[in-house]
Amino acid sequence: MRLGIVTGKIWATRKDASLDGIKLYVLQPLDYLLAPQGSSLIAIDAIGAGEGDTVFWVGGGDATLAFDGRTIASDASIVGIVDSVHTEPDVM
Amino acid sequence: MRLGIVTGKIWATRKDASLDGIKLYVLQPLDYLLAPQGSSLIAIDAIGAGEGDTVFWVGGGDATLAFDGRTIASDASIVGIVDSVHTEPDVM
Amino acid sequence: MRLGIVTGKIWATRKDASLDGIKLYVLQPLDYLLAPQGSSLIAIDAIGAGEGDTVFWVGGGDATLAFDGRTIASDASIVGIVDSVHTEPDVM
Amino acid sequence: MRLGIVTGKIWATRKDASLDGIKLYVLQPLDYLLAPQGSSLIAIDAIGAGEGDTVFWVGGGDATLAFDGRTIASDASIVGIVDSVHTEPDVM
Amino acid sequence: MRLGIVTGKIWATRKDASLDGIKLYVLQPLDYLLAPQGSSLIAIDAIGAGEGDTVFWVGGGDATLAFDGRTIASDASIVGIVDSVHTEPDVM
Repeated sequence: MRLGIVTGKIWATRKDASLDGIKLYVLQPLDYLLAPQGSSLIAIDAIGAGEGDTVFWVGGGDATLAFDGRTIASDASIVGIVDSVHTEPDVM
Repeated sequence: MRLGIVTGKIWATRKDASLDGIKLYVLQPLDYLLAPQGSSLIAIDAIGAGEGDTVFWVGGGDATLAFDGRTIASDASIVGIVDSVHTEPDVM
Repeated sequence: MRLGIVTGKIWATRKDASLDGIKLYVLQPLDYLLAPQGSSLIAIDAIGAGEGDTVFWVGGGDATLAFDGRTIASDASIVGIVDSVHTEPDVM
Repeated sequence: MRLGIVTGKIWATRKDASLDGIKLYVLQPLDYLLAPQGSSLIAIDAIGAGEGDTVFWVGGGDATLAFDGRTIASDASIVGIVDSVHTEPDVM
Repeated sequence: MRLGIVTGKIWATRKDASLDGIKLYVLQPLDYLLAPQGSSLIAIDAIGAGEGDTVFWVGGGDATLAFDGRTIASDASIVGIVDSVHTEPDVM
């Protein structure tokens, strides 16, 4: 998974039926120091995140697992809201 | 998912049977400001998009989900036409 | 999917049994203007392509779909021979 | 798989139910000489690793295999603790 | 698939049970001219390769296919030993 921040939303009337009722967020990936890293993408939301939330998200073929059983046409899914990140630079 | 714009079409008489009757579009990926980003690719269309449409698309192993049940030899699928993108730069 | 041109072949006597009787081609990826793009890779052939053919191919977890039902140890599969590419630069 | 070192931990109260009770580690990928390589990511732990451990991990669609049968919303999973790496530069 | 050369081995006592008895090789990817290309990774061996062998390997979600039926926590698998590579530069 990667960290990210929800920065916007996509509106789409015509879309695959599996996406009906699913929020489509613009997500800016972040590194573990919470600095932007890489390009924004569109992610579906599995846990009730909102704009401005720092989240972690799953990419690729496992993104749809967040909605058990339901098969959704997506490849990026927000699966958690980050409370805090703790890192130990000493271990390096 | 990523944004993109449909810029062309591929014709292919000899192809995997799973692709019969499926449109093969040339797709230029876009960033969330709708500027071109990365290389063009070939995507199948799941929702009736046409050349010039701004769309969002699924890549990798989930691309075939767009045609529920039907297994298609593809790794990129257009799953929605974008009405509008709203971003909040203030959240960063 | 991506475009590519078949530039060579791999011979391998000792290989996973799922690859027996399958052609292993060296494939140079091409952009939509048919210029080389990225590094060559090895792809299996699902449709009877040959050296010199301009093809399109599926990468990643869906590559094996080309042989319905049969599970093959591959991650890139040629699924069509390109007749022509039509692009509309005006849409950008 | 890739090598990595566990450098931190993520706390998240609100998350996908499949992640309950699962440790979420910050992981710095390493090359085979154990030097940092690429960006940190978040991985789940399948084998009881801890901060400071040199591990190897699985990415992408297979990361969830580490918990047989259980489907987890993740795309990176620590699957082993490295005892030693032996390389033969002479073979190149 | 990509070409590669087996340059070393990883020892790991504590690992996911699915990896018991499986060899974990350090693999240097090669281009089709057999020159090193990209970073080393760890691959499981499906066909009895050894250090110094020039092989081809499957990455991503299909890597586990090499052990039909058996689900292994891996994302890279050696599936063949290369006898020879033949390329036709004239086709470009």
